[in-house]
Amino acid sequence: MVLKFIIPSLLLLTMMQAKAQNRARDFGIQIGVMEPGYYNNITDVAGVKVAHVTKIKGEDIRTGVTAILPHEGNLFQEKVPAAVFVGNGFGKLAGSTQIEELGNLESPIVLTNTLNVATGLQGIITYTLSQAGNEAVQSVNAVVGETNDGYLNDIRGQHVSIEDVIAAIQNAKSGMVEEGNVGAGTGTVAFGFKGGIGSSSRKLPENLGGFHVGVLVQSNFGGVLQIDGVPIGKLLGQYSFKNQLESADGSCMIIVATDAPVDERNLKRMAQRAMMGLAKTGGIASNGSGDYVIAFSTYEKNRVKHNEKSLNLEERSLLRNDDMSPLFLATIEATEEAIINSLFAAKTMTGKEGRTVQALPLDEVIQMMKNHNRIP
Amino acid sequence: MVLKFIIPSLLLLTMMQAKAQNRARDFGIQIGVMEPGYYNNITDVAGVKVAHVTKIKGEDIRTGVTAILPHEGNLFQEKVPAAVFVGNGFGKLAGSTQIEELGNLESPIVLTNTLNVATGLQGIITYTLSQAGNEAVQSVNAVVGETNDGYLNDIRGQHVSIEDVIAAIQNAKSGMVEEGNVGAGTGTVAFGFKGGIGSSSRKLPENLGGFHVGVLVQSNFGGVLQIDGVPIGKLLGQYSFKNQLESADGSCMIIVATDAPVDERNLKRMAQRAMMGLAKTGGIASNGSGDYVIAFSTYEKNRVKHNEKSLNLEERSLLRNDDMSPLFLATIEATEEAIINSLFAAKTMTGKEGRTVQALPLDEVIQMMKNHNRIP
Amino acid sequence: MVLKFIIPSLLLLTMMQAKAQNRARDFGIQIGVMEPGYYNNITDVAGVKVAHVTKIKGEDIRTGVTAILPHEGNLFQEKVPAAVFVGNGFGKLAGSTQIEELGNLESPIVLTNTLNVATGLQGIITYTLSQAGNEAVQSVNAVVGETNDGYLNDIRGQHVSIEDVIAAIQNAKSGMVEEGNVGAGTGTVAFGFKGGIGSSSRKLPENLGGFHVGVLVQSNFGGVLQIDGVPIGKLLGQYSFKNQLESADGSCMIIVATDAPVDERNLKRMAQRAMMGLAKTGGIASNGSGDYVIAFSTYEKNRVKHNEKSLNLEERSLLRNDDMSPLFLATIEATEEAIINSLFAAKTMTGKEGRTVQALPLDEVIQMMKNHNRIP
Amino acid sequence: MVLKFIIPSLLLLTMMQAKAQNRARDFGIQIGVMEPGYYNNITDVAGVKVAHVTKIKGEDIRTGVTAILPHEGNLFQEKVPAAVFVGNGFGKLAGSTQIEELGNLESPIVLTNTLNVATGLQGIITYTLSQAGNEAVQSVNAVVGETNDGYLNDIRGQHVSIEDVIAAIQNAKSGMVEEGNVGAGTGTVAFGFKGGIGSSSRKLPENLGGFHVGVLVQSNFGGVLQIDGVPIGKLLGQYSFKNQLESADGSCMIIVATDAPVDERNLKRMAQRAMMGLAKTGGIASNGSGDYVIAFSTYEKNRVKHNEKSLNLEERSLLRNDDMSPLFLATIEATEEAIINSLFAAKTMTGKEGRTVQALPLDEVIQMMKNHNRIP
Repeated sequence: MVLKFIIPSLLLLTMMQAKAQNRARDFGIQIGVMEPGYYNNITDVAGVKVAHVTKIKGEDIRTGVTAILPHEGNLFQEKVPAAVFVGNGFGKLAGSTQIEELGNLESPIVLTNTLNVATGLQGIITYTLSQAGNEAVQSVNAVVGETNDGYLNDIRGQHVSIEDVIAAIQNAKSGMVEEGNVGAGTGTVAFGFKGGIGSSSRKLPENLGGFHVGVLVQSNFGGVLQIDGVPIGKLLGQYSFKNQLESADGSCMIIVATDAPVDERNLKRMAQRAMMGLAKTGGIASNGSGDYVIAFSTYEKNRVKHNEKSLNLEERSLLRNDDMSPLFLATIEATEEAIINSLFAAKTMTGKEGRTVQALPLDEVIQMMKNHNRIP
Repeated sequence: MVLKFIIPSLLLLTMMQAKAQNRARDFGIQIGVMEPGYYNNITDVAGVKVAHVTKIKGEDIRTGVTAILPHEGNLFQEKVPAAVFVGNGFGKLAGSTQIEELGNLESPIVLTNTLNVATGLQGIITYTLSQAGNEAVQSVNAVVGETNDGYLNDIRGQHVSIEDVIAAIQNAKSGMVEEGNVGAGTGTVAFGFKGGIGSSSRKLPENLGGFHVGVLVQSNFGGVLQIDGVPIGKLLGQYSFKNQLESADGSCMIIVATDAPVDERNLKRMAQRAMMGLAKTGGIASNGSGDYVIAFSTYEKNRVKHNEKSLNLEERSLLRNDDMSPLFLATIEATEEAIINSLFAAKTMTGKEGRTVQALPLDEVIQMMKNHNRIP
Repeated sequence: MVLKFIIPSLLLLTMMQAKAQNRARDFGIQIGVMEPGYYNNITDVAGVKVAHVTKIKGEDIRTGVTAILPHEGNLFQEKVPAAVFVGNGFGKLAGSTQIEELGNLESPIVLTNTLNVATGLQGIITYTLSQAGNEAVQSVNAVVGETNDGYLNDIRGQHVSIEDVIAAIQNAKSGMVEEGNVGAGTGTVAFGFKGGIGSSSRKLPENLGGFHVGVLVQSNFGGVLQIDGVPIGKLLGQYSFKNQLESADGSCMIIVATDAPVDERNLKRMAQRAMMGLAKTGGIASNGSGDYVIAFSTYEKNRVKHNEKSLNLEERSLLRNDDMSPLFLATIEATEEAIINSLFAAKTMTGKEGRTVQALPLDEVIQMMKNHNRIP
Repeated sequence: MVLKFIIPSLLLLTMMQAKAQNRARDFGIQIGVMEPGYYNNITDVAGVKVAHVTKIKGEDIRTGVTAILPHEGNLFQEKVPAAVFVGNGFGKLAGSTQIEELGNLESPIVLTNTLNVATGLQGIITYTLSQAGNEAVQSVNAVVGETNDGYLNDIRGQHVSIEDVIAAIQNAKSGMVEEGNVGAGTGTVAFGFKGGIGSSSRKLPENLGGFHVGVLVQSNFGGVLQIDGVPIGKLLGQYSFKNQLESADGSCMIIVATDAPVDERNLKRMAQRAMMGLAKTGGIASNGSGDYVIAFSTYEKNRVKHNEKSLNLEERSLLRNDDMSPLFLATIEATEEAIINSLFAAKTMTGKEGRTVQALPLDEVIQMMKNHNRIP
């Protein structure tokens, strides 16, 4: 199989638009007490690469794929310590039990829509089997997350292809990550507004280790929206259970990356804190929500070589439990801001059956933030 | 052993003072979008009873016991569906694995300080063995939670007695629960201010089932305090990691009660949401924190009889998964408010080695809430 | 999409051969102290249906699909209580987290090879979306398990097709289940001998409830083979770590069905006991093994209707914890016997790169069983 | 408090009798395919120390304490990597959640009877607080396991004292461990015969690493007894559910020690395999059983220092996942043999209400083993 794909023109287009996008911090919103990294993005964790393939076509195709790669090398041959935390398991995440058992991740992470998880798996398998160095590989634990974009997207049509998945993996880049209606976030809805992809990061002060924590989310869930503590959902009169007919359902995939030397146990603890960041946006992990957090560490020394001589010990350097708390706080803050960024970047979209989901009304929101003394 | 104890005079005194206590809602703070129950208290769940034994003595005894009873009957003979969620397991909670395995709770829940967990267990065992109807009991799963009050209290002195534990159990009452520096919250510290016991509740609208969710907390943890979204910790310049020397450690025990007909699986999901309420107060579940949630349902039909004829099926009525989300939101809101209530009620305290922990500066806080447009 | 498939002729052929197959009990081996059901098969649990699609082609295609259906109706519309236990998570089981969260199963269970899990998922999705009554379905939790048949099968070729998966689901039947080199067990290896599909069941005595427990396994793992306690592996000089070069790796998928009224919590406990049955065959759940148990109950009253009026309570009848132990023993015995049956039924096979895996040498084994006084 | 205790004379007596005790291997029974260590005992893991305090008094006191210490130093100041696996959680094990969260053990492990867990905790706390170097300790995660000896022992009398617990800790010794009716096994019952303490070990061949795995059990459970595969329970006509009146309930505490450099994740996997060893003896982890496994590694480099300079990384050397399987097999074999040893060593005992529990009829058993060609 030929594995050279061309970046779809739609993707190129959205990449060029990236500069123009809105982020919470551009408006003076400063979530938390820690500083973001250079890009305020998951790619602030060196080596992490991301790409989206966005599928917008006709009246009712509003979906896509997002791929996150922990490092530039062959992931199967050099696995990274990893963990999964299940915030609410109404979801189809594939690959979680092997991460839990072995403590590592050996594939790119692919996000897409609920009914294309099989496609995502097949894309990763095809990519991994054909990668140089993997000629003898007979087993790969592909990790695919999803949220349901079926309100705007013809999800039953399963419009993501294996080629789309491979393209996302192959085009993954460092630097700025697009947010909003792109990749796996193309057709998603959050708090009744247009959701999508969002990202953010924190860099610990040097006296706390100077490590980075980067978060990327695919936001697609409900609750009572709160932006940096301001009850926007309540103020706009749009929130879950306002009346019986509204549902809070939906999901959130959260990817947490760090360059700190933490093992799978402490990565799981960080992953658990990401749900606390989601909570601060007003998310409630409703019954129908697939809220999963996948966390990994890129710390090079701790990578897990696939083929190693028997009885050669792994030498690991690890942060002590006592030094973890700042990373917990960083995870909470970056997750909160990544979700808010996804809302700020997403634009109003019309899709399946002519349904329209409005973007967050930014002007109104900014005014509310001022009224509540959160921005000058 | 004689099991008739007199309510300690200190306890009586604090009970009389209960009316005068401050609660967030008294100042116009309205957390969330759901309505509280009648008492805005865990005892809004009918049958739930609570009592504190407060141990304040000399320069350095600042500790106590809080007991929570799910119903008025013999708990061992009529167990209640229950679940435990571990927010962060740096703690000594006893009894969790049996709850997880069997899905029920068969003892009062006792909260105390870290080094008196053995005392708590022994108190429950003594109480249970001597209870009428339990003459043949040879095994009881006593449930005891703790937080560490060693900053203000001579914790190594282990000043809680078995009699204190039994007194708390026997004096448990419905109606208003005292908050602040009482019982297991006597010597605790939260966000650098005096913490303690707090409680709150929600009553679902009738069209969502009309059920109650009540929460009681023993607050003793750090982070970046946020009150109904306002960044009080930041504004007061007191929060974790502001400089390297400060620690975010500490713990929070959270008890969630409901009268909704939910089984242990859905109780565990509710328990997990309580940590999302904690997150909204700015808690971060730091490394050294013992953050545990114990949830139970009082729905009478679903109680588990201890002695039942073999092969007699249990007949249970259960809320469907699809109807759980409002209970999740109620749990989040009641937990957030219970923690804030614990801070509002706690008074400045001086204890061990002359250390003083200031109460939350309410006047200043209220002014900040007004500046941020959260109260009129 | 046309969903009418014809039973592959190869499948028909193996079905006709079913009568001739060897089972442990045919030789007088009586594992455990409980009685098997009528078929000594997972289909002794009324309503459970199974089918295999076996792919044997050319020199190196030795693989297949096995589908297990809990009942005859629309599984998505009428879900069954279910649970998953992870014996060792080196595996790619899809669908486990939703079962854990919601406590039920809403799809057929499909077993296949490691690199065809995506195919299995897609097959279930296609089947479910096209099923009458599911026209509005936008999300389905497909459950696919796997073991690695890459020693005999060209696994990198991914020779199972979506049509194969759908055929297995559609052809599922009650009554006798084929064992050995069929379906997902076509190319598997256990204890160094040819493994495959095996099944067994137990029927509790009436005074213990009279319930059935049925087990189906896809055996593909290593260890030190023991048959009804006799150390066959040791006697034959073939076992793991006999010398450094041998590996114990491989996997075992185990499906446990029961007609007892047990909920997801107690099903998980039953699932955990299946690993105890595996242990009794000499399995060790080696590092590279994907040992998963999926358990479900077919008890009709406890089925979970997909669309139900809001706030309508589920009425469940449940066995009490105290009555579970006989079901635990039944699960252990049926799992042990199912694994042994898989070895007895499997025939010597030659596959990829001319490799041959010998069947268990039945004559020799039977003689050993006699020498050890286990059969007359 | 004075912490110098004298070894109770009863203990001395039983220590002298140790030589005379019976072990399965003395009769030619060779469980598994791996070799035991020098003592065939948990103390083959260098540094591990054990002691029992046995309480046999009057008609109805038949109980005791067993303490296991991972190393000779101050355990609180030098913690060891550790994990807990819950085979069946009907039990009162204290301390498990902190082990799970932090990945280490900071106290001796104490085993006793169900209603003396509080005593065990208090004993560990008193011991730890008073230990040199622990003057500032305000929190210790005491680990106490139990099984219910209430058939032979007046368990409601809670006859174990804090002093007994401390004596067991302080008298812990390396070398041969007593088995049978000693310490926490004094009054226990297994498979309807007298149970008790048992131990065994395995030493891996040098080409698999040469590591030791040692196991100690407190056997007190039911099922269908199997000794090295021979169905002794069936042959003797004594097994669970033979008729409705018999119960399979009871518990098993299992301690697994290793000198292999394995972290908490892989220790948990080893702990899980211990239940597979239990399964091979015919145990079924019945509903009422508290079957817990605590595993720790003594590998010196990986110990966790309590007070370490902030941001100093832990340097760990770890066995790779791929090298774990031999340790899994060793754990299974040593657990199986430890349980059998507990039965071989235990003597007939009369206790509460004149009840007598017979020892395993060794002569008869040995004859059966011969008949089944398991010993010459």
